[in-house]
Amino acid sequence: RSMATSSRQSLKIGMIPADGIGREVLPGAKAAIQALGSSLPKTEFIDLLAGFEYFTKTGTALPQETVEVLKNECDCALFGAVSSPSRKVVGYSSPIVALRKKMDLYANIRPVSSVAPSPEEKPQVDLVVIRENTECLYVKQETQTVGENGKEARATRLITERASRRVGEMAFKTALARPRKHVTIIHKSNVLSITDGLFRETVRAVPTLPGVNGAYDSVTIAEQLVDSAVYRLFREPHIYDVMVAPNLYGDIISDAAAALVGSLGLVPSINAGDTFVMGEPVHGSAPDIAGQDIANPLAAIRSAALMLRHLGYGDGADRIENAVDEVIREGRYLTPDLGGKSKTSEVVSEVVKRI
Amino acid sequence: RSMATSSRQSLKIGMIPADGIGREVLPGAKAAIQALGSSLPKTEFIDLLAGFEYFTKTGTALPQETVEVLKNECDCALFGAVSSPSRKVVGYSSPIVALRKKMDLYANIRPVSSVAPSPEEKPQVDLVVIRENTECLYVKQETQTVGENGKEARATRLITERASRRVGEMAFKTALARPRKHVTIIHKSNVLSITDGLFRETVRAVPTLPGVNGAYDSVTIAEQLVDSAVYRLFREPHIYDVMVAPNLYGDIISDAAAALVGSLGLVPSINAGDTFVMGEPVHGSAPDIAGQDIANPLAAIRSAALMLRHLGYGDGADRIENAVDEVIREGRYLTPDLGGKSKTSEVVSEVVKRI
Ligand SMILES: CC(C)[C@H](C(=O)O)[C@@H](O)C(=O)O
Ligand SMILES: CC(C)[C@H](C(=O)O)[C@@H](O)C(=O)O
Repeated sequence: RSMATSSRQSLKIGMIPADGIGREVLPGAKAAIQALGSSLPKTEFIDLLAGFEYFTKTGTALPQETVEVLKNECDCALFGAVSSPSRKVVGYSSPIVALRKKMDLYANIRPVSSVAPSPEEKPQVDLVVIRENTECLYVKQETQTVGENGKEARATRLITERASRRVGEMAFKTALARPRKHVTIIHKSNVLSITDGLFRETVRAVPTLPGVNGAYDSVTIAEQLVDSAVYRLFREPHIYDVMVAPNLYGDIISDAAAALVGSLGLVPSINAGDTFVMGEPVHGSAPDIAGQDIANPLAAIRSAALMLRHLGYGDGADRIENAVDEVIREGRYLTPDLGGKSKTSEVVSEVVKRI
Repeated sequence: RSMATSSRQSLKIGMIPADGIGREVLPGAKAAIQALGSSLPKTEFIDLLAGFEYFTKTGTALPQETVEVLKNECDCALFGAVSSPSRKVVGYSSPIVALRKKMDLYANIRPVSSVAPSPEEKPQVDLVVIRENTECLYVKQETQTVGENGKEARATRLITERASRRVGEMAFKTALARPRKHVTIIHKSNVLSITDGLFRETVRAVPTLPGVNGAYDSVTIAEQLVDSAVYRLFREPHIYDVMVAPNLYGDIISDAAAALVGSLGLVPSINAGDTFVMGEPVHGSAPDIAGQDIANPLAAIRSAALMLRHLGYGDGADRIENAVDEVIREGRYLTPDLGGKSKTSEVVSEVVKRI
């Protein structure tokens, strides 16, 4: 399956709401895509199962069928959010982590920007976190033994040249398409000289890869230790344009960046591979507010736009994103996380009206 | 060596300035301690070597003699800050990480509070990060191999029941002495169910340990995944009182918390074990501003106060901390990181005047 738009007669989108507010925000993303009408090829939405709740009913968090339908029938997918058990549950393993690996969605791309007071002005925060999405501590190779002093648990953190290189290439490609063209490599090589050293050196070497031929000469490179990167994110967010990070640091940094723009309920992402893309809001399943029709649908809607852009439908993505920005700027229809009083469904219909 | 004050005829303090501004802030800490005069036993300061610069001259970052003098002669120590090589340097390994392990300083205690506008009001941020200080990815067990797809690097993340328990005990003890008596356990057990699962369960079990006998019944317990903990730290810092975390999460969280109170230059820490304590400002060696007499000495001075309090000299610690708070509240003598124009040395003498 290729990512070229021209060859597509139809667009098949796997819909995986999973748990909690995941189920409440995905309908908004669907409505936004549908509002684009004939500017997209004929769209078809395929509902797919996964999640912690599904696990509690069936003993499986990610049914094989979901993966097969994604691989064989879908062009792309949208994921809602997944709950985490509050105690260790034997046999349970996060379906989103598994999906990223099984579909080889090696880069998690999370743009975080504040909405400027008017379309002419610049946003105060305008960065993209590009997170390696298949390895680091997420390989989940853990063991436990019992020694003299009690239990001892070990986890493996895997960093490979291949995964670092391809996420690095994604970072440089992304930077090249942005006005500031600046990449900051996040690592902790003062402690992890071998694993984070490999990540850092491999990403740094991307501009010198065979075939690049100076294409990234206009991109500037900086680096930051993860602890001070988080500190500076809060003190001087304007220093960042594209931040590229190993999996776990990327997880933390993207949540930190979300705090800068007012709410996790605004921050979208895509999980991108070479032949598949899956949109996913950065927020979780938020069991505390699930079922009340007050979840912010904007992150899911923006994730749909990002997914469409990645598939080559930039105009459609623009229309959705502009509609979302307008709703935020107007400030009349906002969910409680943004200080408003609107219902999820109300926000969705206001966005759809503006598309 | 015991931590009881009564037995002490004199107080021997190892001074390890190490690199960069570490050398510029430790004299301030020394001056503050000396200003306490006869309210402390006779103090003696012993200068000790360590650091990246020392490594470049000698090939050793932490000379054996430094460790031996600390173990055999000192009651406590103050550490400045250490530089990190900007490229991998064969044979170099961080002396602060090594010191924490060699001296078995198993808890890194980092109080972060904003200074209230007047002594009567409450600070807006008032929390303590208690960071496990000897294991996690800081065991530095890393390997690299070359496979089909290039280099593969692996690091081991070690979490033991013993280390989790003792840092957990430190967290509950600390919470008990604070008005809000609330512990938040930071982990990522939705991904690392075995290692972070062990950390979480072990800390949770501290109140039920034999011998505790209900002593922690007044302490409330919450938990947060590390990504959302950082998010909420910025959105609702008031929810936190004592945060207890594995080593790397604690490293990141304490820098994040520092951003809330205006500057890393304000945040102190102690590395505490059962028989030794070492004060250390949370900031780094800041090569960009080293040598200009503009580094903020307040984190180092506060670290000296924390160290003294841990040794049983609470009155002396109060005097130093109140003097620091006064200087900040007055706002006339502040270093550039806080928007002021004062020199390091000026700030030190203003603090000393007020002790
Ligand atoms: C749910 C969890 C496994 C996931 C992660 O850690 O990747 C989430 O925090 C995210 O950022 O998508
Ligand atoms: C210098 C570095 C090894 C150290 C750490 O990661 O512990 C520092 O960031 C700290 O927080 O004390």
